[in-house]
Amino acid sequence: MKPGFEFCPDCGAPITHETPAGDDRARDVCSRDGKIFYHNPLAVVGTVAEWEGRILMCRRAIEPRRYFWTLPAGFLELGETAADGAIRETREEACAEVDIGPLFSLINVTHIGQIHMFYRATLRGGHHAPGPESTETVLMDEADIPWTELAFPTVYLTLERYFADRRSGRFTLHDEDLARGEWRRMGLREKPTLPA
Amino acid sequence: MKPGFEFCPDCGAPITHETPAGDDRARDVCSRDGKIFYHNPLAVVGTVAEWEGRILMCRRAIEPRRYFWTLPAGFLELGETAADGAIRETREEACAEVDIGPLFSLINVTHIGQIHMFYRATLRGGHHAPGPESTETVLMDEADIPWTELAFPTVYLTLERYFADRRSGRFTLHDEDLARGEWRRMGLREKPTLPA
Repeated sequence: MKPGFEFCPDCGAPITHETPAGDDRARDVCSRDGKIFYHNPLAVVGTVAEWEGRILMCRRAIEPRRYFWTLPAGFLELGETAADGAIRETREEACAEVDIGPLFSLINVTHIGQIHMFYRATLRGGHHAPGPESTETVLMDEADIPWTELAFPTVYLTLERYFADRRSGRFTLHDEDLARGEWRRMGLREKPTLPA
Repeated sequence: MKPGFEFCPDCGAPITHETPAGDDRARDVCSRDGKIFYHNPLAVVGTVAEWEGRILMCRRAIEPRRYFWTLPAGFLELGETAADGAIRETREEACAEVDIGPLFSLINVTHIGQIHMFYRATLRGGHHAPGPESTETVLMDEADIPWTELAFPTVYLTLERYFADRRSGRFTLHDEDLARGEWRRMGLREKPTLPA
């Protein structure tokens, strides 16, 4: 979670790990000029993209969790908004264009230093196809979601909340925290069923 | 916005700036072993903390924007949730304990690679005092907000939305983008009025 530099990325001098004056935790400090380097959580952004009641799901072609199923999502890049990042990831992973809706879930995954944010979205024209990081893309009814074959617990939690909200007729923002090991409680498998 | 490493923080070898296979933009790549280093947006978290209708504001003791007024906020740290980070920043900057409420604003500031997230909160007991990064802390009525003396445009936007929602009797999440130079449109001053 905490990368921990060994060398200063500016000048190449060794890094010392010490608590700066006025701070309350150890930081990476350049031994040459004292510059402090911080490490911070990463934002992951994605979509719950619906088309005629079904949800766009991607089967991962890459590690981690190769062959498991996910909502299209990935790391937010510099220079883009969270919503734009979610649109881009949906395009990259599922060759799909979406009209973006409101933020639906914000899930803190503190033990890996990530915040996952999923936006509701509507698939344009129902078109989708696997991008380079997916082996297949499928529009799934709720009954078809392979819950134990989901890639990540934040995908499980987001889908669970999504279908519950949809049944209730009212979508709200779900700001939640995910503890280490919760994927076991959810029943996520350690090894995927291999594609036929 | 993009830090751009010159030396590998793992081994100290020179960094090359090239587009990895399958990627669409230049990354920092270690010239020794090809490891890729990504740079991503940072999350800033804070509170709109209310007490008897007034809002907790802090006058900054440090740069940037020293002596300007801000909502308590700062960079999200590894190992904490966004809400916990907002609570911590409020404690650090205003010695104040809050009961945290729902996420109120999520503002993309893409030109500086940041996402600012403000939570609604209730101040416990109305207690506050300046922490090391503040020269003073004040509970302000809407009429007392020094709009042109605010530190950051995300604070301006969040307060503007907050008072509008409060008047309407309905708070919603404000997911917005802030363009470069918008602080001028808001009338934020370049130099602060100095404390008496």
